[in-house]
Amino acid sequence: MTAQETYTELKKRMIEISMLQSTGGVLHWDQEAYLPKKGADHRGEQLAQISQLTHKWFTDPSIGDKIGVIENSDLMKNYESEAAVNVREWRRLYDRETKLPTEFVQDFARTTSKASQVWAEARKKSDFAIFQPYLQHIVDLCRQKADYIGFETEAYDGLVDDFEPGAKVADFEAAFNGLRPELVELVGKIKDAPKKPDIKILKRPYDVEKQKIFVEAITSAMGYDFEAGRFDLAAHPSCNEMGPWDVRILTRYYRNDFAEGLTGGMHEAGHALYDMTRPNKEHWGTPMHETASLAIHESQSRMWENIVGRSREFWVYFFPQLQRIFREETAGITLDDFYQAMNWVAPSYIRVEADEATYCLHVMLRFELERAIIAGDVKVKDIPGEWNRRFKDYLGIEIDNDANGCLQDVHWSHGIFGYFPTYALGNLYSAQFWMQAQKDNPGLLDDFTHGKFGGLFSWLGDKIHTKGSTYLAADLCQRVTGQSLSHKPLLDYLYDKYEGIYGIKR
Amino acid sequence: MTAQETYTELKKRMIEISMLQSTGGVLHWDQEAYLPKKGADHRGEQLAQISQLTHKWFTDPSIGDKIGVIENSDLMKNYESEAAVNVREWRRLYDRETKLPTEFVQDFARTTSKASQVWAEARKKSDFAIFQPYLQHIVDLCRQKADYIGFETEAYDGLVDDFEPGAKVADFEAAFNGLRPELVELVGKIKDAPKKPDIKILKRPYDVEKQKIFVEAITSAMGYDFEAGRFDLAAHPSCNEMGPWDVRILTRYYRNDFAEGLTGGMHEAGHALYDMTRPNKEHWGTPMHETASLAIHESQSRMWENIVGRSREFWVYFFPQLQRIFREETAGITLDDFYQAMNWVAPSYIRVEADEATYCLHVMLRFELERAIIAGDVKVKDIPGEWNRRFKDYLGIEIDNDANGCLQDVHWSHGIFGYFPTYALGNLYSAQFWMQAQKDNPGLLDDFTHGKFGGLFSWLGDKIHTKGSTYLAADLCQRVTGQSLSHKPLLDYLYDKYEGIYGIKR
Repeated sequence: MTAQETYTELKKRMIEISMLQSTGGVLHWDQEAYLPKKGADHRGEQLAQISQLTHKWFTDPSIGDKIGVIENSDLMKNYESEAAVNVREWRRLYDRETKLPTEFVQDFARTTSKASQVWAEARKKSDFAIFQPYLQHIVDLCRQKADYIGFETEAYDGLVDDFEPGAKVADFEAAFNGLRPELVELVGKIKDAPKKPDIKILKRPYDVEKQKIFVEAITSAMGYDFEAGRFDLAAHPSCNEMGPWDVRILTRYYRNDFAEGLTGGMHEAGHALYDMTRPNKEHWGTPMHETASLAIHESQSRMWENIVGRSREFWVYFFPQLQRIFREETAGITLDDFYQAMNWVAPSYIRVEADEATYCLHVMLRFELERAIIAGDVKVKDIPGEWNRRFKDYLGIEIDNDANGCLQDVHWSHGIFGYFPTYALGNLYSAQFWMQAQKDNPGLLDDFTHGKFGGLFSWLGDKIHTKGSTYLAADLCQRVTGQSLSHKPLLDYLYDKYEGIYGIKR
Repeated sequence: MTAQETYTELKKRMIEISMLQSTGGVLHWDQEAYLPKKGADHRGEQLAQISQLTHKWFTDPSIGDKIGVIENSDLMKNYESEAAVNVREWRRLYDRETKLPTEFVQDFARTTSKASQVWAEARKKSDFAIFQPYLQHIVDLCRQKADYIGFETEAYDGLVDDFEPGAKVADFEAAFNGLRPELVELVGKIKDAPKKPDIKILKRPYDVEKQKIFVEAITSAMGYDFEAGRFDLAAHPSCNEMGPWDVRILTRYYRNDFAEGLTGGMHEAGHALYDMTRPNKEHWGTPMHETASLAIHESQSRMWENIVGRSREFWVYFFPQLQRIFREETAGITLDDFYQAMNWVAPSYIRVEADEATYCLHVMLRFELERAIIAGDVKVKDIPGEWNRRFKDYLGIEIDNDANGCLQDVHWSHGIFGYFPTYALGNLYSAQFWMQAQKDNPGLLDDFTHGKFGGLFSWLGDKIHTKGSTYLAADLCQRVTGQSLSHKPLLDYLYDKYEGIYGIKR
């Protein structure tokens, strides 16, 4: 068998695995959207069966053998070729899946399953001590996991790699370290700003049925294809790719919080545009069709949610439509009132409710803390104190209890360490891409005032979406923007906006 | 390994197969309810993967070996034991799946896939000649299929067995032959009846949102558990069991046809009550949890749709509620107007739109015709003529074109011969069970007038639902009613109702 034949066979098998995983995706989507209460146990068993099957197929030694054969062939010579891209990523995933012993994976699953129940109870009672021994066990397991996976400099890198292939803390900490003090300063200036938007105009009762219609119309203008997707309601917003032409959004609307439904919908639609554009038919089920990394994916959702959806130009076009649909709700509100309210900034306890300016501070706090925990520099028992101290430093407010502090996120109870940085990286990438998109195409903001988003969508498609996993995230950033990741574009973008709204100076 | 150990292992594997099939059920439900248009191709591939996998698992020779070991053990001695029931049915299914050569199955799939497209075109143009060569090929394949499966007396029995295990035409044709002339006479009398209900009161515009609320409330009163199921909209009504506690209904409502949404919803809820009651947790995934046959399942849907939902007692309770919800729509209508309209009878072309009295005539025509086609007594080219002649005999009206005649049903184009009898058998069983239920529990109709259906539901549960596949359908009927299948209960039930409504005499 030639290397090419081996590759063809391997690819066929990988697409079969992806096919079954996409069936798992349907089960998961349905679980979030429509599953009857009593069906939960059976759904858990269905999902477990799919993941056991795909794991078994993927870790079959014949897969490793085939990868090895292709790696030693000419097929890898062209870095950007389909075979080279796919086999590089398959190798990474195969090693990750096979390096962890079965007993370890089972112990990890048992521990985190129990821990997430305990975490929920601890958060309810706002008592970290209840969660502490479970978190200690999880931290120990995560260190072990990093050892199994392997790393060069620090164990935390081994964990980050799971979510952000090839990313090492040393590569992005410069950007983070540059960003943090500047953001702290910006947030401080806004706190003491002479002008403040009136956020209450977004908290009036907005009819929920109309919200749904309005938000879906906006995502349709963005380019979301309702013949290849749909919106349904769920407790948590998410984007669910279940096939090359089936990318569905789950979201929610609140009668007394207009921004929540709008930004949630645009955020998930940003993810969906990525999934809908990538070179679908021919590469579906292989890394060529996947994303470079979670942060790159997040850069797309942040781009549409924040950079587009909170821009004045966007509202020049959509505010009159909003007024016509929500006649009573918007009575007495001007375009600038609305635009400014959409850009309301104020430190608050909860990350998922944070505004565009404070969000990265929430994330960086978590990143720094979990890195120190894995390194052993912060003991598990000291987490609440460390959290609260940093929170005061960055956001200027005192944490009143653990539920509003270190117990607010589910991630650690699931054993997820190394994921948080991708949120901040996504924000940084989005601003850096946006800067470049405007350079390449200076009319973009003007397009927005006419409700035209095709220029931005096709730029993103050309430069990012269609590249799949061809390049690692940092490499993609360099290629697209000509520069390595920097905190400057995000900060320029934020000051540019907030100077006008809050009357502050840099 | 002991026979018991072999059985335990086999059962475990069979439950795994059922688990994956139930995942296919979710894919199918979603396809009917929510799948975006462009997702259709990928969904087809996902479904094909699940059915290929489950077929491969189920037809593995080790399955046949295990069945053989248990068949030769003491585990089969008690006919009603779990092992005996399950292994009998696994044997039937295993033989069916393994007797058909792979090339034959592929040829069958290819032929019917093409044929259903051609059928759709032929029906559109109302031209049987377009469909004829494809149907000829399908008939040839069905004869071959019967040969592979095997039969004692006539090939058609081999096809019926696929849907109605153990049923032979000779066993039920007496009931059919008894029913047909009596039904023809009944329908003739109704045609010339002195009194006629006013069907137009059901064709007023009924608000669709209210219909949904009203129909779901009725099924909740029947016993449908909305924590273990839900209603969604789809082009065709269906009941979808996706797990022991996840039984969902798809249905539809028409603004100008109130009865359609109501009877469709009650029909599917009748199926669902069966699926919800069977001894769920312990036997799920094995024949002990399945139905005796399609006809027995259909007897449950018909019971609730017709015998309950078209009874005067049912409307004594629900008509006042209907009036309060549909205040304008029901203006000037009395309980008896409504009850009688719900029992409107008139010959019409299309089976799926037929009323309770003419429905069996539609079905028996198809049964007789397909039996004669398989036997070679009716040539494929002669189908339209034969259809139209019988239709005139049974229903007294002339078929105006093939689309309203022999081209109306999709079944034959899918290669489904032998299925139609189950519809009529379901009707017969429902009336015979109802007769017995009333004998055992004389207060049932009175219960209906108080909105109480628990007496009937628990009788059906005890006598039928919880029996799973323990007995063949004919055997179950004998055990429950003390008699073999007869056309008399259905006819008694129909005359009892129609004498009052139409002023006719038997």
